[in-house]
Amino acid sequence: MAEPLVLINVFEVPAEEAEQFIAAWEKMRDYLKSQPGYIDTALHQAIAPEADFQFVNVAHWGTAEEFLAATQTSEFLDSAVGLVGYPLHPSLYRVVRT
Amino acid sequence: MAEPLVLINVFEVPAEEAEQFIAAWEKMRDYLKSQPGYIDTALHQAIAPEADFQFVNVAHWGTAEEFLAATQTSEFLDSAVGLVGYPLHPSLYRVVRT
Repeated sequence: MAEPLVLINVFEVPAEEAEQFIAAWEKMRDYLKSQPGYIDTALHQAIAPEADFQFVNVAHWGTAEEFLAATQTSEFLDSAVGLVGYPLHPSLYRVVRT
Repeated sequence: MAEPLVLINVFEVPAEEAEQFIAAWEKMRDYLKSQPGYIDTALHQAIAPEADFQFVNVAHWGTAEEFLAATQTSEFLDSAVGLVGYPLHPSLYRVVRT
């Protein structure tokens, strides 16, 4: 079986908006975890407030098609509305070295 | 026991320099994995060449002190010389939501 795909999403969030961001992220997570292909997710918060990226999400999905299908629905857009305004950099990855 | 610390390093690498970057990254990894506190590492490569960040490394370390000690040696600088020229964004993180 192929390794699961890894979705990594790098978020630009001011440190003082961390709580508000987490609440908004949880809404999107709750929607995504109900979708086919979702495996797991882990939201990472930087220890230092001066980090370039305060939050990085690392999630696993079965296939790229399932991830793309999950994010091309109006329900997804509704769930993600609280994240509008935070620049984000989502991409699909595979582990190439350990 | 506390959760291990997560070092996430986001690299800006042109897609066409991927092989050269991986070879340079492996030299740094080989040094770091010999250091106290190192647990594991996984270098993620983007599937799409147009991703904002072609590479993201996710590593686990026992403590921040061990990670910082490992990266403040002249051996570390020697091992990382091949990565000079690639903008990078390393920070220490903790998982705050799953």
